[in-house]
Amino acid sequence: MAHALHLAARGLGNVWPNPAVGCVLVREGQIVGRGWTQPGGRPHAERRALDQAGGAAQGATAYVTLEPCAHYGHTPPCAEGLIAAGIARVVTALTDPDPRVAGRGHAMLRAAGIRVTEGILSAQAARLNAGFLRRVTETLPFVTLKLATTLDGRIATATGDSRWITGPEARRHTHLLRLTHDAVMVGSGTALADDPDLTVRDLGAQRQPVRIVLDSRLSHSPDSRLGGSARQVPVWMVHGPDAPATARAGWAATGAELIEVATDNGHIAPRGALTALAARGLTRILCEGGGQLAASLVRNGLVQDAALYTAGALIGGDGRAALGALGLTRLAEAPRLTLREACRLGPDTFTLWSFG
Amino acid sequence: MAHALHLAARGLGNVWPNPAVGCVLVREGQIVGRGWTQPGGRPHAERRALDQAGGAAQGATAYVTLEPCAHYGHTPPCAEGLIAAGIARVVTALTDPDPRVAGRGHAMLRAAGIRVTEGILSAQAARLNAGFLRRVTETLPFVTLKLATTLDGRIATATGDSRWITGPEARRHTHLLRLTHDAVMVGSGTALADDPDLTVRDLGAQRQPVRIVLDSRLSHSPDSRLGGSARQVPVWMVHGPDAPATARAGWAATGAELIEVATDNGHIAPRGALTALAARGLTRILCEGGGQLAASLVRNGLVQDAALYTAGALIGGDGRAALGALGLTRLAEAPRLTLREACRLGPDTFTLWSFG
Repeated sequence: MAHALHLAARGLGNVWPNPAVGCVLVREGQIVGRGWTQPGGRPHAERRALDQAGGAAQGATAYVTLEPCAHYGHTPPCAEGLIAAGIARVVTALTDPDPRVAGRGHAMLRAAGIRVTEGILSAQAARLNAGFLRRVTETLPFVTLKLATTLDGRIATATGDSRWITGPEARRHTHLLRLTHDAVMVGSGTALADDPDLTVRDLGAQRQPVRIVLDSRLSHSPDSRLGGSARQVPVWMVHGPDAPATARAGWAATGAELIEVATDNGHIAPRGALTALAARGLTRILCEGGGQLAASLVRNGLVQDAALYTAGALIGGDGRAALGALGLTRLAEAPRLTLREACRLGPDTFTLWSFG
Repeated sequence: MAHALHLAARGLGNVWPNPAVGCVLVREGQIVGRGWTQPGGRPHAERRALDQAGGAAQGATAYVTLEPCAHYGHTPPCAEGLIAAGIARVVTALTDPDPRVAGRGHAMLRAAGIRVTEGILSAQAARLNAGFLRRVTETLPFVTLKLATTLDGRIATATGDSRWITGPEARRHTHLLRLTHDAVMVGSGTALADDPDLTVRDLGAQRQPVRIVLDSRLSHSPDSRLGGSARQVPVWMVHGPDAPATARAGWAATGAELIEVATDNGHIAPRGALTALAARGLTRILCEGGGQLAASLVRNGLVQDAALYTAGALIGGDGRAALGALGLTRLAEAPRLTLREACRLGPDTFTLWSFG
């Protein structure tokens, strides 16, 4: 199952709205087939592993990170495939909460006389597919907040100079982080200030993440880098009801998708925006700033992970803060995070923290 | 020599104004004596190692982290002791820059027919005794800046709630950091806000660090914790020429030492203060805040290390910053630091960075 989870992780960022699943077939102590969800979500992991194993699947045990599907969608149900191949035993990590599956896959296997063991390494599997599970159960995506700061938590000098806080290793690692997310999201302030590209470069990406700007009045220019490349890599402009018609037309002409959501005091209401993005299939979103958007997401409890790049530099209290105001008075109200990973990246450090 | 350096480190914080020295005596592949500078600076490392070895020192090689002293001070010169004990060879890491030694120790040994090898592990030895070397060559102490912040670089909420950002493991580690410094220093704002004690607790400290407040007008109350304990553990109040006579008298009555230095716009001039502290023998000072003092030290290039405790929490841009304004416009002007150490401390992380 641990190996199946490693295979599953290859799908992160590539398979939305589907879950990233891994499957390992073992017969007489030998691995006879391995599969993971392919880019775009198909073929499924089980199908790939069965095709690889061929006749050797007969009598094998299948380790699958998620309950095999039981419904006819774009592909025939995987549970049926496992039965037809003569699999003797199926071990799974999680029940699929998708109402079209939700235990029916396990039941179908058992009805065919296959021995089924559930819940193996379920915590690791739930962490891996937190985006898929959150989308199905909460109709919200999993959000990772990226922060790249100096030792004193600054992202730019008072005059806005921010290139570069971190070194090339950390910036490259950020591209890896983008690669494992379905979409990269910034606020309009960051879009206007940096004119970012937000693509994954130099890492052999099979599928680029969707690029999202939360921009209530569509102030970012269609003549920007995002506008100029929207036909090559998707750009979704999330705006409010008051976005001017000319700006809408300008962005529509670039090939970007326009998504209208509610605003709150002139700013995009963050929960509504994330719900709209989950409804379009996104399971994992990387928020790359700015400080106001980050604070708005944190205040509303909408962030699950924080990815922190720390550079050995000091800017001082007059520099720009990584995070906007949260309005806390008591320290006891401060959101607390748990350390998951820590490593050095050239001259900088990387730490990954989870909320809650 | 590596072993001698580990022994030498035991003296850090305990031996000022003397250097922390380690000495290992080896005869026929066996260690026959080990010594390090004792609390208060005497006996010296070589004397301890020779006493431990007794007659076995005859014909041995002495590994010493600093050139043996050549002058009569409170103790007879160590070079003479090594000669008298019949040491055959001496290996050292550094020349002692103290003008009373400055090569004379090495020369005395050579004149007595002892083979001398210099400069072994000199970089490590220079790092270990950076405080002693800086005091002798620059008449300034080595300053470590401690920062304990949230992920977004905050030390308190807007209302000042700061207990506790970090967990018990990190707070205990801070006491270990205090233990390896000659003195702990805070600004008057921190003294007034926190009424700190600044002692080393629960670690079996042989010698408590001196407790220093930079307090231009002596606004901190003699009825504080520091004032109440100044007869047990030294308190040095560094003030300006305008400190009121009543405040001076109040602090003098507690047993605290008063040190008058120049001010600059009403604030203690940081270089002058550190020079005065080095003149009183301090080699290693831990600055524990607040943000204005820290920024003043950083702006003036007076900090050598930054010890950063990072807690998994977010306070937001309206919280209090760890560091005051540095007045930078270009990122290229930002002081850069190099990572030296990184570890987890319970729920928090600790990273040690060096300037330059």
